[in-house]
Amino acid sequence: MSEPTVPTEILRQLARKTPSKILLLVCDGLAGLPHPDTGLTEMETARTPNLDALARRSMLGSAELVGPGITPGSGPGHLSIFGYDPFRFLVGRGVLSALGVGFPLHSDDVAARMNFCTLDAEGRILDRRAGRIPTVESAPLVDRLRGITLSGAEVFVEPEMDYRAVLVLRGAGLSEHVADTDPQVAGVPPLAPMPMHPAAVRTAELAGEFVARAREVLRDQSRANGLLLRGFSRLPELPLIGDSYKLDAAAIAVYPMYRGLARLVGMTIVPTGATMRDEIATLRACWDQHDFFFVHFKYTDSAGEDGDFDRKVRVLEEIDGLIPELLALQPDVFALTGDHSTPATMAAHSWHPSPVLLLSRWVLPDDSQRFTERTARRGGLGRLHMSQLMGLLMAHAQKLLKYGA
Amino acid sequence: MSEPTVPTEILRQLARKTPSKILLLVCDGLAGLPHPDTGLTEMETARTPNLDALARRSMLGSAELVGPGITPGSGPGHLSIFGYDPFRFLVGRGVLSALGVGFPLHSDDVAARMNFCTLDAEGRILDRRAGRIPTVESAPLVDRLRGITLSGAEVFVEPEMDYRAVLVLRGAGLSEHVADTDPQVAGVPPLAPMPMHPAAVRTAELAGEFVARAREVLRDQSRANGLLLRGFSRLPELPLIGDSYKLDAAAIAVYPMYRGLARLVGMTIVPTGATMRDEIATLRACWDQHDFFFVHFKYTDSAGEDGDFDRKVRVLEEIDGLIPELLALQPDVFALTGDHSTPATMAAHSWHPSPVLLLSRWVLPDDSQRFTERTARRGGLGRLHMSQLMGLLMAHAQKLLKYGA
Repeated sequence: MSEPTVPTEILRQLARKTPSKILLLVCDGLAGLPHPDTGLTEMETARTPNLDALARRSMLGSAELVGPGITPGSGPGHLSIFGYDPFRFLVGRGVLSALGVGFPLHSDDVAARMNFCTLDAEGRILDRRAGRIPTVESAPLVDRLRGITLSGAEVFVEPEMDYRAVLVLRGAGLSEHVADTDPQVAGVPPLAPMPMHPAAVRTAELAGEFVARAREVLRDQSRANGLLLRGFSRLPELPLIGDSYKLDAAAIAVYPMYRGLARLVGMTIVPTGATMRDEIATLRACWDQHDFFFVHFKYTDSAGEDGDFDRKVRVLEEIDGLIPELLALQPDVFALTGDHSTPATMAAHSWHPSPVLLLSRWVLPDDSQRFTERTARRGGLGRLHMSQLMGLLMAHAQKLLKYGA
Repeated sequence: MSEPTVPTEILRQLARKTPSKILLLVCDGLAGLPHPDTGLTEMETARTPNLDALARRSMLGSAELVGPGITPGSGPGHLSIFGYDPFRFLVGRGVLSALGVGFPLHSDDVAARMNFCTLDAEGRILDRRAGRIPTVESAPLVDRLRGITLSGAEVFVEPEMDYRAVLVLRGAGLSEHVADTDPQVAGVPPLAPMPMHPAAVRTAELAGEFVARAREVLRDQSRANGLLLRGFSRLPELPLIGDSYKLDAAAIAVYPMYRGLARLVGMTIVPTGATMRDEIATLRACWDQHDFFFVHFKYTDSAGEDGDFDRKVRVLEEIDGLIPELLALQPDVFALTGDHSTPATMAAHSWHPSPVLLLSRWVLPDDSQRFTERTARRGGLGRLHMSQLMGLLMAHAQKLLKYGA
């Protein structure tokens, strides 16, 4: 409750380069809510001997990612973790997707998330995700869409994953202020791309032309015969983490979106495999080359989103088993948190604060015996805004000079 | 702890209409301080089995109404509860009184709270409240004052309650920047209405003329032979709760001022009786017609203001007895808090934070066994700013969309 925020500019002034290493593990959608039968959350249910031992040596806290009651998307959640005010900096969905597939966006490009969908004979949406067709099916369709040319803008189409792809328009005078064409429900036709600002009239026309041409190209498809566009956006101007914190930051994440977010703030993306164990092997391999490591574990969120309480518990137990390997690297600072809550009982992101665990030589440990949502609330870090975590990580790594004489 | 304030504009963007219902019970001046003999506050002393049971299923928190050390008047206290920044939005006392009696204020009207007072032969104040004359005595005097006409402004006088009334001046070029005439102590004459801004010179003159004419009118009175004017003010421009939150809000309050505050933010005022039980009957009767209900219980504050510790305890026990009737309505979200503290030991409003209790399907309960000032401090909502409560209520009612992709 209203401790003043440390301005980024102050951190920038105080930051210094040191050899110490910070390891930040983000378990997507970490926190949850009680199972109705037991009254225990996923974290409280999981058997986590390693995290329990770690909690006893650490400080815990409970962090608001955006603000009270606000459910963060993955973008605001991660930007907050990386130290950005999530109200000031917002990354559009299209840009996130483009970054996630490694597309080299120019500052004037307009990107939109493109979902293949299934349309009926009258053009009404039957399935907003085209039966969740796999990438092996969608990638050749993306190739075909690349053949579409528009007058006045270059067109790029990139496959993302499954039924998802990215559309990028490049040209003079484009604007991101175009409304989504996804009506969010089936049974009605996709919306036409509408300009939300006079400057976006031409961009909306181009998007509409692209969609019309795409329908011809996809005419022979039974499942992916239509397109939905969402999140028209341009690159935001974010201060880079290397400038703000003098960090050489590496990011290890399986999913494209999180790599995209990390790239956006200036982290080096280190290629990795599809499992958490792959990510740890990658971390070990690049440990000598950087001084800040963002490792993203996705599967806590996936289980929560699927409403699978037991699977989320198992993922947490699996993560617990990996903790010794992470600590074996002997990071000077180790932090573990989530980018939002994903209670299995809600099967969705939620607004509940995220527990934070912070370990360094310089913590004054709590008397916590476990790392859970409720022990974190009583932890010594108290309730904090997640955007202030970076300052704490820097301090515990002794990378911040004294402020004032 | 730096929860940055969620901008109202963000809430407005994320708010959506749903059938879920929010019940917000405000017990005026709820919190207190320890009795010197027992070391227990009024809330800690009261036998409250229903609230105890509720606390075990809820999240508690401790909310700052305005800011650390700031004692809120009823206006800022309620505006904060309704989600407004109490530093940005301030409702003058005159306006509050006018709204409370249902006077249809125009945007340019200047209103002032008018207290009858007792003056001695030399015009010095003997009693700032005219012996607290009852409404049956003051109303006929108000009628007489309505006979006063001023050149250049219409005059309206409305009885409020007991020795209190409202003066409204209507005319071109009036300004609210006129100082109070109430010197706040007896033994000295009332102050002359002084302009605090060049634009207010004429308004101050009109107010002075009204007071002089009123003294003639009241010459024959022994107790109410003078007037004190406070809180010259005009209607503030407040975003309406229906626009900001897409809520159809109803307000149930016995006292005029609280109805006035609720009307100001766009709530529908539902007429009710004089007791808490009347208010609950009213609530039950209109339960199907709205999706947000603000219910105001006054008597905790009255007892506290009177310095009557035991009576405040009894009022709390009475409220406890009403809790089952409130919960029987099955609100999706139930919250209970106060608009400021009124410790009986201080016999006045105080700056101490207000405990908050929040119940919904989506809370992660604390281990609190009771709902008191001290259990609330340790609650899972932590310390929060009261103006953020509305966001939490909206979130728990699942009336807020996700922020960002």
